[in-house]
Amino acid sequence: MADEILAQALAALSISPTATISHEPTTSPAQWKEVISANAETPKDFELIKVLVYKPKTAKTATPVPVVVIAREATETNSTAIGKQLNLKELRLAAPELLQEFFGLDKDSLSPFAIDLASFGKVVTVIDPSIADSTSTFAIHASSSSSTIFVSGKDIANYLKSLETDATKLQDLAAPGAAAAAPAPAAKAPAKEKEDAKIEGAVQIAIGVKKEVDFAGWYTNVLIKADMLDYYSVSGCYILKPWSYSIWEEIQTWFNTEIKKLGVQNSYFPMFISQSVLEREKEHIEGFSPEVAWVTRAGQSDLEEPIAIRPTSETSMYPYYAKWIRSHRDLPLKLNQWNSVVRWEFKNPQPFLRTREFLWQEGHTAFLTKEEADQEVKEILDLYRQVYEDLLAVPVIPGIKSEKEKFAGGLYTTTLEGFISTSGRGIQAATSHCLGQNFSRPEMFNIFVEDPNDGSKSHVWQNSWGLSTRAIGVMVMVHGDNQGLVLPPRVASVQAIVVPCGITAKTTDEQRKKINDSCEALAKTLRDKGVRAKADLRDGYTPGYKFNDWEQKGVPLRLEIGPNDLAKNQTLTVRRDTGAKNPVSLDNIGQTVSDLLATIQSDMFNTAKTNYWSHVKAVTEWKDVVPALDGKNIIAIPWCEQEACEDEIKEKSGRAAEPQDERAPSAGAKSLCIPFDQSHWPAIEVGKTKCTGCGKDAKRWTLFGRSY
Amino acid sequence: MADEILAQALAALSISPTATISHEPTTSPAQWKEVISANAETPKDFELIKVLVYKPKTAKTATPVPVVVIAREATETNSTAIGKQLNLKELRLAAPELLQEFFGLDKDSLSPFAIDLASFGKVVTVIDPSIADSTSTFAIHASSSSSTIFVSGKDIANYLKSLETDATKLQDLAAPGAAAAAPAPAAKAPAKEKEDAKIEGAVQIAIGVKKEVDFAGWYTNVLIKADMLDYYSVSGCYILKPWSYSIWEEIQTWFNTEIKKLGVQNSYFPMFISQSVLEREKEHIEGFSPEVAWVTRAGQSDLEEPIAIRPTSETSMYPYYAKWIRSHRDLPLKLNQWNSVVRWEFKNPQPFLRTREFLWQEGHTAFLTKEEADQEVKEILDLYRQVYEDLLAVPVIPGIKSEKEKFAGGLYTTTLEGFISTSGRGIQAATSHCLGQNFSRPEMFNIFVEDPNDGSKSHVWQNSWGLSTRAIGVMVMVHGDNQGLVLPPRVASVQAIVVPCGITAKTTDEQRKKINDSCEALAKTLRDKGVRAKADLRDGYTPGYKFNDWEQKGVPLRLEIGPNDLAKNQTLTVRRDTGAKNPVSLDNIGQTVSDLLATIQSDMFNTAKTNYWSHVKAVTEWKDVVPALDGKNIIAIPWCEQEACEDEIKEKSGRAAEPQDERAPSAGAKSLCIPFDQSHWPAIEVGKTKCTGCGKDAKRWTLFGRSY
Repeated sequence: MADEILAQALAALSISPTATISHEPTTSPAQWKEVISANAETPKDFELIKVLVYKPKTAKTATPVPVVVIAREATETNSTAIGKQLNLKELRLAAPELLQEFFGLDKDSLSPFAIDLASFGKVVTVIDPSIADSTSTFAIHASSSSSTIFVSGKDIANYLKSLETDATKLQDLAAPGAAAAAPAPAAKAPAKEKEDAKIEGAVQIAIGVKKEVDFAGWYTNVLIKADMLDYYSVSGCYILKPWSYSIWEEIQTWFNTEIKKLGVQNSYFPMFISQSVLEREKEHIEGFSPEVAWVTRAGQSDLEEPIAIRPTSETSMYPYYAKWIRSHRDLPLKLNQWNSVVRWEFKNPQPFLRTREFLWQEGHTAFLTKEEADQEVKEILDLYRQVYEDLLAVPVIPGIKSEKEKFAGGLYTTTLEGFISTSGRGIQAATSHCLGQNFSRPEMFNIFVEDPNDGSKSHVWQNSWGLSTRAIGVMVMVHGDNQGLVLPPRVASVQAIVVPCGITAKTTDEQRKKINDSCEALAKTLRDKGVRAKADLRDGYTPGYKFNDWEQKGVPLRLEIGPNDLAKNQTLTVRRDTGAKNPVSLDNIGQTVSDLLATIQSDMFNTAKTNYWSHVKAVTEWKDVVPALDGKNIIAIPWCEQEACEDEIKEKSGRAAEPQDERAPSAGAKSLCIPFDQSHWPAIEVGKTKCTGCGKDAKRWTLFGRSY
Repeated sequence: MADEILAQALAALSISPTATISHEPTTSPAQWKEVISANAETPKDFELIKVLVYKPKTAKTATPVPVVVIAREATETNSTAIGKQLNLKELRLAAPELLQEFFGLDKDSLSPFAIDLASFGKVVTVIDPSIADSTSTFAIHASSSSSTIFVSGKDIANYLKSLETDATKLQDLAAPGAAAAAPAPAAKAPAKEKEDAKIEGAVQIAIGVKKEVDFAGWYTNVLIKADMLDYYSVSGCYILKPWSYSIWEEIQTWFNTEIKKLGVQNSYFPMFISQSVLEREKEHIEGFSPEVAWVTRAGQSDLEEPIAIRPTSETSMYPYYAKWIRSHRDLPLKLNQWNSVVRWEFKNPQPFLRTREFLWQEGHTAFLTKEEADQEVKEILDLYRQVYEDLLAVPVIPGIKSEKEKFAGGLYTTTLEGFISTSGRGIQAATSHCLGQNFSRPEMFNIFVEDPNDGSKSHVWQNSWGLSTRAIGVMVMVHGDNQGLVLPPRVASVQAIVVPCGITAKTTDEQRKKINDSCEALAKTLRDKGVRAKADLRDGYTPGYKFNDWEQKGVPLRLEIGPNDLAKNQTLTVRRDTGAKNPVSLDNIGQTVSDLLATIQSDMFNTAKTNYWSHVKAVTEWKDVVPALDGKNIIAIPWCEQEACEDEIKEKSGRAAEPQDERAPSAGAKSLCIPFDQSHWPAIEVGKTKCTGCGKDAKRWTLFGRSY
């Protein structure tokens, strides 16, 4: 249906579009964006157009005159303002019946070209006038359509104008609101002060999609707009741009320092694992085999045996551990790798959270005794906790995984569980596994040391532990807002951005230079004090554009310097996390800013922690489980720790659940972890406290939740 | 033949070997080692046995009595000492005829089990007595044999003893020499002083194979013994152990700092490239396609289209450069990645130098003008030069590649050419390419910026540049000696090792503690001064064992502390590069050691540089070309720069060449580079100076050589 309409409209257009792309129907804006980005025909720069239909308050006896608004996707359309402009009352988004009545289609088939001569006469059509003026290319895509066309703004306006009659004219959408979120193009440098006022005054949703409304769309938009990531032509793989990769580098630097203190050394094992080696540990490989990518050909030659790309390196490394470990002196052996692994998931991929290739570190250690292994498992988990809590300001709850959820082939798994309050889902943040002697036993990799006295063999105790770039995704989800990314200072590659302000058409070159020089000097002072600071002296961009740009990118602190600030020897500090503005003296500014960054870091963590714990609901009766989950919480229950009970909780809570976001892997609740710290809840009374799931005796409080 | 003998001997043995492995015949010890290491049946720890047959000086009329020596592979057997022990004169390695006469086989079929009742009676058989006592497993492999058996030392001795008659007994090989290179086992802790003396007195070839005699064997032995690397079960892939990976980390840290100063940012692109994208640039893909590894299956599902693992990332990155680069403001774009790439070579792999997966960095930059691109190409090449010369102490000659040797699809390639004097071969050390507009042109990736005034398009100028872990291999080859690795201080993870000495059985616990504490204190003092120092306080190892261990591992400086040193407030410094020993005062030791390390660094570079240039022969007549090459030199010739001439030089020099090491990829000389600095040679007179290759007009002096 939508396709036919497009075809008709295109035929009516005397010009040909920049590009027309056919693709499979998509089920979400994010998926559409991925499909489109991956297509080589897609113009390298385009904007999206949205079509909104409103119904004004109309007397019951009268025929309504719907209002059709055609605007840039990123523009916030304020129905009150539009109503005021058109002198119509109480505009509300139109019901499906109305769309059917006027256009003969549903909202997923709407596009500017869905308006024809017949419908144009019956509605009021309002277009953002900047679309027609723009040099941009616009993507026209009705969400039910399996094609997307790219046309100029002029062509859209011309098409709609071609429908005009004396009685019905196309109307321009008035500012403010309309042009608010559109970045000021470089060519429009003059008259900056006026534009600043507009941007600062207007309510903006720079990110285009509200976090609370379309979380998946918001997430991908933030990543793209903050320049963290781009889609890639191989599905499920993403490009980590410098803005996100630098966060990974910060994590690497800190973590490397810490593990080296523990005697861990970095190394590199090949990414390939031969089939026979990979399949040596049965339980382990069962956990991974559906997702293993196989190389079967090199150049034009088929390989004799297919070779796997590592999904994790246990089986790659342990044959050599068996070779290298010969005596007590060779223990402990502690190696780590920073590499990428491949798990070819067929579920919906999601940047950072579930990708087919991802970056991580994997530590693999071997000890003589279980005690040493146990201790290291905890030490590493605590380093991971510090990465999340101290670097990324993301609160996590440390605990142990249930038998069902532990690492395939391991003895036990400790974990950090994070929480995404917008979706109400738990997320596994990092894991530190004790493998016990499962991989070292004689029938496996046979890793042992011999007692020099009696020749007796001791098989080693092993751990493996990993932290991946998923951490970055969790950080984005926890802190980001409708202005974009919010970076915790410790991992921000730019911690403070200095922006010159108050430069008008009347500003002399000398004054302008003075302001710019002061900004650069301030940035330098801060850098000398160890603050990662930068002055944004780009010509031809308004301060408002710059504010918006750095806010989207999540820079923790903005420092503004204008003529007044210079006169008063001050700078205006603007916090990204709270928006709080505060003028501070330039005297001792290095210390002031360092302190402020530390405050931001700790405030961000505390806010997120309060939020997390407000969503952890202790539930002791089954009837409260699903309502708590549906209320976007995770639950703490006294639990029996039986696998059958866990299965049943998942099944029952899934059945009862409301329909979920299509990106969510599962709507049933699974166990997240058994927290080490049980003191948050009343003590379990053995034989008395019953399991919320099955009513049998409970052992420990356990977190359950829907999860990523 | 050898196989039958083994089978017979095994039948004679009443015990069964630890393992028997059948494999393809191998052509070198290195290849055998690789085959054996990759086999899952191979015991995790074993030593090699060698069998040497000597003929003593014998009167012409007399029948000689050959001496058969059975020793550990690593033990240096001194024929003079053996002769002295047996009271025989002028032992010489036996000629093939003699082996045929006594054993009915050639030297490649010799093994302890090749000695039978008949031959045993006619020869003198000498065995290292420590073999029979050893708890080690020994590999018995005649080089012509397609199997290897693993037996205990006791079994070897028992077999030989079973051949004894009253007339002929098995003899023990006397120390010194025999036990010299064998590490003192942990259980033999007492009586250290005596063993030290032995080790210090004996001439050792710790590495087992002489660099000048079997370079390929020496190279792999050094890498294994220095704990740099291990073989891996997927052929052509190797494990980088911490001792080598830490060198890579040093390079990364330094290079990252430098490129960030140039405005380069790190990022990460997926390892996968879809077939269609990979094949977009024809010339480029032709250069790589025979070596591309293809993923065709994930889990049990065949992929719709095979996906390549990146051999390099031009085609992975540039579609996104086209997307991201929109205006002049987006230039220059400078991204770098640290990753691994896969080139599935079918030639003989060699650790670090030619491996199927290798670690590198690849920089990819885009500029508005050719001038900017040209400048960066040189800046990056100079950073690479600093990595080699300043960090690795490896001299290189910067220049430009010939058209034939330049990067596939690029405009021109600048390169650093290194030299391995032992093999007389050049080696490409690092390359910095100007791609010109070949990848940005409209029919390729179409990367351009638009002029905001007139809308005209400028396609960008691009560079790509890479440095790989090959650098580590070159460093090993250039500096290593017959004691093992020699590390330049700047990249050594341990720059100074402090070894306690002079502890004897009579040493009191108090004295021992005092010496150990002094060593630890010295190491700490050095660490506080920024020296990467460590005290080797391992119990149960003799100082001699420790000396040997750290020498093999190439630690630049050893500091010995014994009772005498303590009394004199001094330490004995021993340089790894020269062996020079010098007592120095402990006062101001931090500065003394720092200075000494700086001296070692610069001496190592200067020595290598002098050596390099002594092997660069200016040749102006064809007749001198092949002799110069055969003399293990590279040549500088006035060259016409024509591709046909280059082909002919390669062909003619290859035809004339002597047989080469089987690992060498080609015996013909190819152009290495046209050095930027032409001042080493007489100025080319245009129209007068003729090309050494073809006699036409020469343009510039160009380096040609056999190469890796």
